Amino acid sequence: MLETLSEHGCFGGVQGYYRHASPAIGLDMRFSVFVPPQASKGSPLPVLFYLAGLTCTEETFMIKAGAQRVAAELGMILVASDTSPRGAGIAGESDSWDFGVGAGFYLDATQAPWSQHYRMESYVVDDLRRAVLDNFPADPQRMGVFGHSMGGHGALTLALRHRDVYRSVSAFAPIAAPINCAWGQKAFSHYLGTDRQAWKQHDASELMRALQTPFPQGILIDQGLADKFLAEQLLPERFEAACKEASQPLSLRRHAGYDHGYYFIETFMEDHLRFHHANLVG
Amino acid sequence: MLETLSEHGCFGGVQGYYRHASPAIGLDMRFSVFVPPQASKGSPLPVLFYLAGLTCTEETFMIKAGAQRVAAELGMILVASDTSPRGAGIAGESDSWDFGVGAGFYLDATQAPWSQHYRMESYVVDDLRRAVLDNFPADPQRMGVFGHSMGGHGALTLALRHRDVYRSVSAFAPIAAPINCAWGQKAFSHYLGTDRQAWKQHDASELMRALQTPFPQGILIDQGLADKFLAEQLLPERFEAACKEASQPLSLRRHAGYDHGYYFIETFMEDHLRFHHANLVG
Repeated sequence: MLETLSEHGCFGGVQGYYRHASPAIGLDMRFSVFVPPQASKGSPLPVLFYLAGLTCTEETFMIKAGAQRVAAELGMILVASDTSPRGAGIAGESDSWDFGVGAGFYLDATQAPWSQHYRMESYVVDDLRRAVLDNFPADPQRMGVFGHSMGGHGALTLALRHRDVYRSVSAFAPIAAPINCAWGQKAFSHYLGTDRQAWKQHDASELMRALQTPFPQGILIDQGLADKFLAEQLLPERFEAACKEASQPLSLRRHAGYDHGYYFIETFMEDHLRFHHANLVG
Repeated sequence: MLETLSEHGCFGGVQGYYRHASPAIGLDMRFSVFVPPQASKGSPLPVLFYLAGLTCTEETFMIKAGAQRVAAELGMILVASDTSPRGAGIAGESDSWDFGVGAGFYLDATQAPWSQHYRMESYVVDDLRRAVLDNFPADPQRMGVFGHSMGGHGALTLALRHRDVYRSVSAFAPIAAPINCAWGQKAFSHYLGTDRQAWKQHDASELMRALQTPFPQGILIDQGLADKFLAEQLLPERFEAACKEASQPLSLRRHAGYDHGYYFIETFMEDHLRFHHANLVG
């Protein structure tokens, strides 16, 4: 059952906010969907899932990224998830901006107390996808995923771990090698424990290195060179090297003068939507 | 003196946030500017001032409206002001969401205690304009104004009261006849006192009725028909009637399914920028 929180006319389509019970999380979750005007024609439409970064919610992308205009032109459904469970009630879960609430890292925690509710991988791949298929004119065969920062990590790892689900993937300033940066090490040590082999299953660069050309049509990544997190936390050069090892075509575009925020993201948003559309529909 | 709070690359230009001392307000004020890539060519550029609605700040328009993409294409500077003084310290100024802080109504208060700092008309027309001309490649002969809701009231009234300053005007869901709605009556009675003749000098419909074709190239207004404030607070039909009396060309576009929020505004933003560009440059 889907509860409609609000719906708004937007570029001839509908921007909606919804709440539903998530079996994977064990709590209610909120998400947002943009349905383009082409939905009225009745055919199932391609779907693009957006995974946001640290501290964000299901609203951030929809209000800041300027994506609906292009999705309305191309006839794509946009879906944005929240970035963590809300209301798990774990002691200290809101103490850090980069761990816990707003920082679920799109994986299923295996360590108590996080393992009961912090299961964002199963949420996004199973529960959210099911909710979208059950309630919107979505084509299960034409789904892509993209994201920003922590959500770029999520987009790359979920796409590599679930190649049957996502047919295209792109990212803005992703945490591209989390086992090698402080954000990733903090999150993985709490969510996954001390076994670094387990960490590798959620590291985009490690996952890529083990595969051969998982996305033959290419992967698109945009990165600002004025991004204050680039050198310490994002490490796209490690993902770039892994793609080379795996013969994975990658377009890693580096942009002088752009930082980590949504002014950067909105500047290149149209390119990402057209990239996914070409992969899903072309 | 202008203090730079932050600057961000955006669509090839720069999105900046600034603070300066306002003589009119008697306090520091914050505003935002988008400078398009054409600024590097050295010629002065047309400027479009945006006045936001109740509860908003100088940030709202820049993060939600999706205007920079089109401004970057057309070569227009965008400026957004705050919606009231901050820090005046008047008892009760933050008690209401529709009066006081975040609700300056773009007029100079004449009644104590508001008259000392709540002088948003002089701020926007004099101090903000001067700051833009002194610090950015802005053409003083090509300035337009637009806004939303309370800021639509501000755009219409400031344009009609300062026709030497603003050469084009448009609005999204403006408070079009404030002396006839609760929002306007509450604000005007506190800021301007009980003399209704004084109120008429800040009511777009009354001002329009007294003029003959002040903007011969036309005025553009977009209004959503699912806007919950339309019938009680906005009253665009009164402005429409006043334009007819004054032989003022008006394009009042009514849109089924759109509400009062920024999903409505961003949908029609491109049309407004092209309207102003045609008036200011064409």
